[in-house]
Amino acid sequence: MSSSIKQMMQDIGKRARSASRAMAHASSEQKNQALLHIAKLVREQSAQIQKVNQGDVERAKAGSQDAAFIDRLTMTPKTIETMALGLEQIVSLEDPIGKITALKKQASGIELGQMRVPLGVIGIIYESRPNVTIDAAALCLKSGNAVILRGGSEAIDSNTVLAQIIQGGLAATGLPTDAVQVVATTDRSAVGEMITMTEYIDVIVPRGGKSLIARLMAEARVPMIKHLDGICHTYIDADADIEMAIKVCDNAKTQRYAPCNAMETLLVNKEVASKVLPALCKIYQDKGVELRVDALTRKTLEDAAFKGLVDAKEEDWHAEYLAPILSIKTVSDMDEAMNHIERYGSKHTDAIITNNKANADRFLREVDSASVMVNASTRFADGFEYGLGAEIGISNDKLHARGPVGLDGLTSLKYIVMGHGEIRT
Amino acid sequence: MSSSIKQMMQDIGKRARSASRAMAHASSEQKNQALLHIAKLVREQSAQIQKVNQGDVERAKAGSQDAAFIDRLTMTPKTIETMALGLEQIVSLEDPIGKITALKKQASGIELGQMRVPLGVIGIIYESRPNVTIDAAALCLKSGNAVILRGGSEAIDSNTVLAQIIQGGLAATGLPTDAVQVVATTDRSAVGEMITMTEYIDVIVPRGGKSLIARLMAEARVPMIKHLDGICHTYIDADADIEMAIKVCDNAKTQRYAPCNAMETLLVNKEVASKVLPALCKIYQDKGVELRVDALTRKTLEDAAFKGLVDAKEEDWHAEYLAPILSIKTVSDMDEAMNHIERYGSKHTDAIITNNKANADRFLREVDSASVMVNASTRFADGFEYGLGAEIGISNDKLHARGPVGLDGLTSLKYIVMGHGEIRT
Repeated sequence: MSSSIKQMMQDIGKRARSASRAMAHASSEQKNQALLHIAKLVREQSAQIQKVNQGDVERAKAGSQDAAFIDRLTMTPKTIETMALGLEQIVSLEDPIGKITALKKQASGIELGQMRVPLGVIGIIYESRPNVTIDAAALCLKSGNAVILRGGSEAIDSNTVLAQIIQGGLAATGLPTDAVQVVATTDRSAVGEMITMTEYIDVIVPRGGKSLIARLMAEARVPMIKHLDGICHTYIDADADIEMAIKVCDNAKTQRYAPCNAMETLLVNKEVASKVLPALCKIYQDKGVELRVDALTRKTLEDAAFKGLVDAKEEDWHAEYLAPILSIKTVSDMDEAMNHIERYGSKHTDAIITNNKANADRFLREVDSASVMVNASTRFADGFEYGLGAEIGISNDKLHARGPVGLDGLTSLKYIVMGHGEIRT
Repeated sequence: MSSSIKQMMQDIGKRARSASRAMAHASSEQKNQALLHIAKLVREQSAQIQKVNQGDVERAKAGSQDAAFIDRLTMTPKTIETMALGLEQIVSLEDPIGKITALKKQASGIELGQMRVPLGVIGIIYESRPNVTIDAAALCLKSGNAVILRGGSEAIDSNTVLAQIIQGGLAATGLPTDAVQVVATTDRSAVGEMITMTEYIDVIVPRGGKSLIARLMAEARVPMIKHLDGICHTYIDADADIEMAIKVCDNAKTQRYAPCNAMETLLVNKEVASKVLPALCKIYQDKGVELRVDALTRKTLEDAAFKGLVDAKEEDWHAEYLAPILSIKTVSDMDEAMNHIERYGSKHTDAIITNNKANADRFLREVDSASVMVNASTRFADGFEYGLGAEIGISNDKLHARGPVGLDGLTSLKYIVMGHGEIRT
C-alpha cells in the first residue's frame, strides 16, 4: 500500500476516534437535531445531489456496468425523499445510550449495574449504493458512534456530496464534523488499511455481496458484524398444516428473490410430500421458479405429471441462488432435515412448518441459526419486522449481535459499580 | 507447521464440533450429574493425580523454572480438593441454556423472542496451571459447549490425567467424551493451528500473561475473549471523603499486587492532594510500595517530609506493575484525570472517589472502561464479586462480553419466531 494512503487512513482514524468521545456524550436531543437538520439539507439540496450523482451514473454506464448496478447507483427525487424519511424514522427511535439496568446489591455492599454505551468508531464498507451513506451514518450517529464510510468507487462523488450534507448537519448542531467521514479515494488499499487499523476502528460492518465479504474476512483484523450468505431452509413436517405450508413456502421463496432471508432449499417430510408438493410446485412453476430436486421429490412430482424438473447436484444444497431457483429434498424425518440444515445451511434463518409442539420445540432448540422460526416465512428475518426500527446489517456469527442488527448492535454494555467505600477482604 | 500436527488438530476440532451438538441439547440434570461425577473422581484419584503431577514438577525444576512457576504447577491435596469444590459450585449455578425471553407480538402477528444457546466449541489456551483444566472445562460443560484445552507444556502429564478423569465423568453420564479434549502435544505449532481453525472453534479464551496474549492476538483468526492488561486507575476527586479515599486506595493497591484489577496509577485532585497523600503514602511506604510520582505529587509529599520517592517517567503511566509499585499524578481537575485514563488506561477498571453526584455521573458515563466504579476498590472487578458465580476470564473488548465473563459469556442469543402461518407482504 502506498504510504500516503496509509497516512490518510490513519489521520481519518485519529479524527474519528477523537470525535467518538464527543459523540458518546452527546444528548439524545442534540443527536436528533442533527439528524433532522441533515434530513432538511437532503431535501433542500436534492437537485444538487442528483446533478452530482448523474456524473457518477454516466461514468458507470461508460464503464459498462449492468442495469441492476446502475439502478442501485442512481438517485432520484424518490430515493432522496426516502433517505430523508429514513433519517426522520431514526429520530423517532429510542436512544439506547446511557440506559442503566437496575442496580443490584452484591454481598460486599457494592451496587452493580450495566450501562449501554457506544462501541466507538464504526467502519462501513459498502458497494455503490449512495443511500447507504445516509442510512448507515444516521444509525451510527443515533447510537453515539463516529463512523468512517467507504462506499464503492463508482459512487464517490455522490458519497462526497452526501458527506458534506451530513457534516453540515453536525456542524449546525454543535457536533464534531469528524463524526462522519467518507474515505474520498478510489484507491482500494484504503480498504486494506481500514480493516486492519484496530487502534482506530472498533467494528467493521461490510454491506455487499458474498465476494466482498469473503475478501474482507480473509484480511480483516478489526472485528466484523457480517454474514457471508443466507442459505435459508424451510422444513415441512409430517404434522404440517398443508394449506399453511403452501402459503408460507410460496412467500418465503417468491415474495422477493434477492434478499438474504429468501428460502433457497425446501425440505419436505416424505409422509406429506404427495399432499403438499404438487400444489406448491405448481405455484412455483407458474411464477417461473426453476425446481432442482432429489430423486424422491422427482418421483412425487412426476407422479403428478410435472415436467421441466432439474436434478439437484451436491452444489445445489450449498447454493444461495438469490434468484427464481429452488432446491427441494424429500426427507424421512425431522432429524434428516436438521442434519441437512447443519451440513449445508449458513446459520442465517431456518423454519419449520408443523402443528406438532414437541417437534417445534426441538427444531427451535436444536437448529443453530441466528433466526429459527415455526410456521412463518423466512422473509421475516429483518430488523424492521423484528421491531428493531432499523437494521445496520445481519450477523450469522454467534459473538456479539446475532441475526438482524439494530441500534443495540452498535453499542456495548459496561459494568458500573456504585460503592460506599467498600473494600475487598 | 508439521502436517501431522495440523491433521491432529483438525481431527480434534471435528470431534469437538460433533460433540458440541450433543452438548447443546444435554439437560441441566445430565450436565450437573457429569460435573458431580468428575468431582467424585477427582477426590478418588487424588493420589494418582499428585503422583503424575510430581513428574511434571520434577521436570520443571530440572528445567530451572522459578518458585512461583513451580507453585502454580504443583497440585497438593488442598488444591485438588479446591478443584472438586469448584466443580460442585458450578453445579449450583443456574443453567443459562434454553432460557427464552418473553415472546413479543410484532405488527405482522409473529411472536418474537430470544433463546440462550451455547457458542459451540471453546478453545482455552493457558499456562502451566493444571487447576485451569478442571475449572475451564467445568464452565464450558455447564454452558453446553465442547472445549479444547491447551495448557502449558510443563503440565502436560497433569493435564492428561485430569482430561481422563473428566472424560470418565462424561462417559458415566452418557455425554460425549469428545466434549472435553486436551491437546496432548508440547509442539507449539498446535497453538498456531488452534487459533486459526475458525471452522471448528467459535471462540478462544486465552488465560495467561500479557506476552502470551499479545502473541496470540497477532496471529488469531478465531475471535478471542481476552484482555491484554489491566492498567487500573483511581481518581480522588476534590469532593472526596478523605478517610474513604485512603481506605479504598490502600485496598485497591495493596490487598493483592498480582491481579489485573489492582490499581496501578493513582490520580489526585490538587485541591485535596495535601489532605490525602501524606496519610495514604505513609501506608504505602509502610507496606513497602515504591512510589513513582510526578513533580506536583513530589512537592506535596516532600513538604510532608517523605523520602525515597522515584520520579515517574512516561513509561510509568503505561505500566501494569503487578507488583508493590504505584505511580501517582496530581491533576488540576476531573477532566485532566479522565484524559489521562483515556490516554494511558487499558479499558479494564477505573474508579472515582467523590461525594459529588454530578462528577460521579460524568465519570461513570464518560470513562470508557469495562468496569467504572464510584467509591469502591478496583479489586471488585471480578466474576465472583459481580455475582456471576464463576469467571472464565475478563474482557477489555467492547464486542460480546465485556468485563468479568461468566457462563453467559460462553453463550449466544438466537432469535426465535413463533408464527401462525404469517407471510410477508
